Amino acid sequence: MNNLRIELIIFIGFLCLNISLLNAQNLKSPNGNLELKIKLNEEGTPLYSLNYKNISAILPSKLGIELKDIPSLIDGFKIDEINTDEIDENWSPVWGKQKTIRNNYNELVIKLIQPELDNRHIFLRFRLFNDGLAFRYEFPKQATLNYFVIKEEHTEFSLNGDHKIFWIPGDYDTNEYAYTTSKISEIPSKIEEATIFINSQTPIQELAVQTPSMMKSDDGLYINIHEAALQNYAAMELNVDVANKIMSSHLVPDALGNKGFMQTNTQSPWRTIIVSDDARDILASNMIVNLNAPTEYEDTSWIKPTKYIGVWWEYFVEGKSTWAYGTETNVKLNDNFRELTPNGRHGATTKHVKDYVDFASENGFDAVLVEGWNIGWEDWIGHWKENVFDFTTPYPDFDVKEVGTYAESKGVKIMMHHETSASATNYERRLDRAFDFMNKNGYTSVKTGYVGQIIPRGEHHDSQWMVNHYSHVAKRAADYKIMVNSHEAVRPTGLHRTYPNWIAQESARGTEFEAMGGLAPEHASILAFTRLIGGPMDYTPGIFQTDLSHYGKNKQRVNTTLVKQLAYYVTMYSPLQMAADLPENYKRFPDAFQFIKDVAVDWDNSWYLEAEPGDYVTIARKEKGKENWFVGSITDENSRTAIIEFSFLPKNEKYVATVYADAKDASYDVNPQNYTIKSIIVNSKSRLKQYIAPGGGLAISIKKVSEN
Amino acid sequence: MNNLRIELIIFIGFLCLNISLLNAQNLKSPNGNLELKIKLNEEGTPLYSLNYKNISAILPSKLGIELKDIPSLIDGFKIDEINTDEIDENWSPVWGKQKTIRNNYNELVIKLIQPELDNRHIFLRFRLFNDGLAFRYEFPKQATLNYFVIKEEHTEFSLNGDHKIFWIPGDYDTNEYAYTTSKISEIPSKIEEATIFINSQTPIQELAVQTPSMMKSDDGLYINIHEAALQNYAAMELNVDVANKIMSSHLVPDALGNKGFMQTNTQSPWRTIIVSDDARDILASNMIVNLNAPTEYEDTSWIKPTKYIGVWWEYFVEGKSTWAYGTETNVKLNDNFRELTPNGRHGATTKHVKDYVDFASENGFDAVLVEGWNIGWEDWIGHWKENVFDFTTPYPDFDVKEVGTYAESKGVKIMMHHETSASATNYERRLDRAFDFMNKNGYTSVKTGYVGQIIPRGEHHDSQWMVNHYSHVAKRAADYKIMVNSHEAVRPTGLHRTYPNWIAQESARGTEFEAMGGLAPEHASILAFTRLIGGPMDYTPGIFQTDLSHYGKNKQRVNTTLVKQLAYYVTMYSPLQMAADLPENYKRFPDAFQFIKDVAVDWDNSWYLEAEPGDYVTIARKEKGKENWFVGSITDENSRTAIIEFSFLPKNEKYVATVYADAKDASYDVNPQNYTIKSIIVNSKSRLKQYIAPGGGLAISIKKVSEN
Repeated sequence: MNNLRIELIIFIGFLCLNISLLNAQNLKSPNGNLELKIKLNEEGTPLYSLNYKNISAILPSKLGIELKDIPSLIDGFKIDEINTDEIDENWSPVWGKQKTIRNNYNELVIKLIQPELDNRHIFLRFRLFNDGLAFRYEFPKQATLNYFVIKEEHTEFSLNGDHKIFWIPGDYDTNEYAYTTSKISEIPSKIEEATIFINSQTPIQELAVQTPSMMKSDDGLYINIHEAALQNYAAMELNVDVANKIMSSHLVPDALGNKGFMQTNTQSPWRTIIVSDDARDILASNMIVNLNAPTEYEDTSWIKPTKYIGVWWEYFVEGKSTWAYGTETNVKLNDNFRELTPNGRHGATTKHVKDYVDFASENGFDAVLVEGWNIGWEDWIGHWKENVFDFTTPYPDFDVKEVGTYAESKGVKIMMHHETSASATNYERRLDRAFDFMNKNGYTSVKTGYVGQIIPRGEHHDSQWMVNHYSHVAKRAADYKIMVNSHEAVRPTGLHRTYPNWIAQESARGTEFEAMGGLAPEHASILAFTRLIGGPMDYTPGIFQTDLSHYGKNKQRVNTTLVKQLAYYVTMYSPLQMAADLPENYKRFPDAFQFIKDVAVDWDNSWYLEAEPGDYVTIARKEKGKENWFVGSITDENSRTAIIEFSFLPKNEKYVATVYADAKDASYDVNPQNYTIKSIIVNSKSRLKQYIAPGGGLAISIKKVSEN
Repeated sequence: MNNLRIELIIFIGFLCLNISLLNAQNLKSPNGNLELKIKLNEEGTPLYSLNYKNISAILPSKLGIELKDIPSLIDGFKIDEINTDEIDENWSPVWGKQKTIRNNYNELVIKLIQPELDNRHIFLRFRLFNDGLAFRYEFPKQATLNYFVIKEEHTEFSLNGDHKIFWIPGDYDTNEYAYTTSKISEIPSKIEEATIFINSQTPIQELAVQTPSMMKSDDGLYINIHEAALQNYAAMELNVDVANKIMSSHLVPDALGNKGFMQTNTQSPWRTIIVSDDARDILASNMIVNLNAPTEYEDTSWIKPTKYIGVWWEYFVEGKSTWAYGTETNVKLNDNFRELTPNGRHGATTKHVKDYVDFASENGFDAVLVEGWNIGWEDWIGHWKENVFDFTTPYPDFDVKEVGTYAESKGVKIMMHHETSASATNYERRLDRAFDFMNKNGYTSVKTGYVGQIIPRGEHHDSQWMVNHYSHVAKRAADYKIMVNSHEAVRPTGLHRTYPNWIAQESARGTEFEAMGGLAPEHASILAFTRLIGGPMDYTPGIFQTDLSHYGKNKQRVNTTLVKQLAYYVTMYSPLQMAADLPENYKRFPDAFQFIKDVAVDWDNSWYLEAEPGDYVTIARKEKGKENWFVGSITDENSRTAIIEFSFLPKNEKYVATVYADAKDASYDVNPQNYTIKSIIVNSKSRLKQYIAPGGGLAISIKKVSEN
């Protein structure tokens, strides 16, 4: 308890006689830019509002939770107690965008009681950072409230205008939609078109969008709404009330429509509103990780940022290879897989994976991902089938032990793949055995997948039960010192602080969609402000052969230049980075490939040089523990000139910057593989103006000038 | 393929030109008493009927499966192929009512095709035994049918009259109702009263009863409808069409109302109709086990029939002890349980369990069940809470290792208890660890419990997912050489042949209800014809102190005489038998207790001497591998005189029979503890007429006259 809190307690003593005054509170951010106001209305419902430099970010907005079968936590409240606190501390993540993170906020905790319900009570905890507001509902242990079921959370975010918004449709099962940029008022007319087909999708019936929700107001405010520390609670989507410009929480239901099974001495996740008048502050924000609990893992030495290649992209390009070994289309897990008819194109063979191991070893990669190694792929999708995979039985042409031993001899790890086909129950009951199998074969990380309709049937990818499932997998993996990279899981909310072995997630439309319809050139510059706000993404960049007709008749293309793919290693923060293309393509462009070989995956610090959601992002980062810097810059479908100020470099030192740039005639659709590479000498006062092609990028690696 | 089949194939060749003849088939049982007729009606729907000695057991009844989203397997069928077979073989169960079981039936397999649906096809497989009919639907692998979802199975059982029926209400979650005896036509007026409160119940909205459904016709036919080999399918309940006297299948749905997720190369469970004009044949039937698959376990030496006592009944009688250790009412699994406030009455303490071990050792019991040993019991029920128990953390006053070591030194096993609180997901994800913990502490069997609402939420105790769960637990337990005794699981269907370590189940209203409202005196003589038809029951008999006011003010009583409790060890077949009363009560009646000490739990053979459902049952059994016989006889609320013919004994030998009988002044409600014990000499020609009191019983142990 600090002075401010003591003062407030005295203050409360004074104000006990004056409920109307007690019923209004305010709080400022440490730097004074943000101001939070709290009040109770006449019904005893709490409202909050948020200003940034006296501009409204959030107008007065209601808070409350609707319960099932018992009176709700919505109205009839009185403020019973108020506490404040100020925190300013630094901490070091196991891995991250910077080695030291500052956690600096002013806190206001309001105890709300419902006098007509035997003083049943909750706490509202607000934390006001310089970069935004976070708050959560806390449900303390009490005689009058033990177990309860949430029917809906009614947290409002009332906006002061018809903002520009970067959105994907609300959906209980997928976050793999393409983004639409529009005014809030345009969402209704655009949502049908935006709700494209995704394997396993449950679009919300009401008008709703997903978080992180990135907005820009006509006043020039950037507002990002998301949540932090999503544990034992359904994910929050946002209902959109277009007429009133109010967004409100929409929790993902279970099979029966319930939205949360709760036992007191618990809390909601944090609701987060990152706000600034400078888009770069949104990218720089550490609010989300700060709101998550520190890890309780005693030993984290086994958690290692990883650069990898994999038997993967070849499954997406025409005529290469397949996950499945057999030609059959009706297969059961207990069939004798040795009786399958080989299709002759199985990707994950011992020999082929050894070739990948050789390439990884020769080029300094840490690991090789192998998909399609285990039985079940003939017939794995689309049938809501529970026992698709067992995670321990390889196809007859893949020798787990031999590959593991070979990789070890080459200093390379094999990354296990556990596609669950969304059958979480099947995965959970086999989990100990699957991880034990990995331990015995020397595999230290796993890519998990959740393609399909969830089992337990009726649950959703983002419902409370599944939210718990993903955490359970991360925790159990930690028991076996295994790192997890989850695909098709609920989007991240900073839990990688608590479970640092949950090293990355997909949880958005990633590179694979370049081979299934393509991504808009602006996609990655929106992702930086949306999906990546919650945590690192396994975007799987590095596609050099962007025109997929290279492989056959398929006219699909990756909508970037080659150089933009390099830039992603810096702009798409992740401690797990894939070089996703085929080795044969890297051999064709060895000079450009050098950047991927050089780029770091863990950082001492990051600098956000240029940013505008949907348009461009330029970021510089310093490699952890080394005097190497890397810069990445991406643009949308328009060309632009990036301006790189090298002030992030230490003063009075000279550096060699290797600049990978789009050629003048390059663009995402014409000559995407035309690039230039030049070396320049820079120091902290240098400034580089560099052309970036439409759908292009810029990548720079910076080293000290060698002393010889 | 035998001659009959070859003849039929020739026959089919001949009849191909005559569809109307092909569309009717019949089959007789090996002894000719039963006759099955099959035909297709004009809509192409199959119908079957069954006669017993020319009396109708089942009138022509439709067969079919309604599918979701695709055309059903109900009509439009043509018979494409017919095969028959005759089987007469013997096999030996790991344990059972007899050491050799005869499996003798005539089989008819009909291939039905739907010409208008690209010849989509199923098989109907009928097996006609001397004691009844079984049939199932088989769904072969085929181009036109791969995955499908069952909306409902429409198997009819059309009855030829308003039979007397012993029934419990249809319910998706419990089979612990008390039985009602009535005419079929009286079910509607009695079902509301019959639907008493049970913890976690989901009565079927339509008029429905459960299986095994025992009926008696005015013609004197005994008809028992049940199912066998319930695997990967929802349990079948029976809709009752009172007007037409037609019962029909009603499968238990999942959370979304689906009734089965199927992939071809599969089948339904067997639908079974045991029929005779002698009630004893119903008890003697081995049809259900015969229809189950032989076990695939290579080693079954670790599966041992078991007689046990336990820290259990003391939780049901007033003021004794509690499962819970603490007084708290809001507890979480991750709380520090060492901070609980001891309630001072915790049952499962190291010391108390050691006393039970001593008693078990002194009296020849194999094992001691310990309930309430693990954290979570303060607050375990009624909240649909997922993480109630972890199955590996004992209360601070129970030392798992010390108790295990002590028991081992006394030649006694400790039986682990895993109450899941119906949170099957929680149990599955902890199962390997729980069983590994048991192995490490020398515990070789587990009693599982499923009290409460099922998680996955929306699933039911008897839905397909849970049916798979129970089998999964049995199979996984076998990996650890652990025997399973499941309570509150779906009622058995003979799967103990396939999984002989699934040694017993509760799955009906057992002894515990004597302390919670009481059981009718006729209850056990109905159970023999209903619940026990599917497999052994852990009924937990042996209550000597039947008047529970002995312990305090609770006026509950066990509605049997003391001797009837002895008789249960013979009439209630199970390889797992508890002596459920407190050791102090056995010490008060050492002469009667001798029967429990003597009685076997595995058998060479069994003889069904007298039987009438709801009235009385008399059974003799020979101990496996020993020259000892035991007879049990029970009656309902009426006294009767049992007539025991000792013709089951080997000829020309003399035996001592120790006869435990109700005293003349005894009855279930007055003087229940009055009994007589006498020894008589008997041989295979002997006949004993013995009085049995109202709610009473008779128990006889028979040994060879010793040669000295």
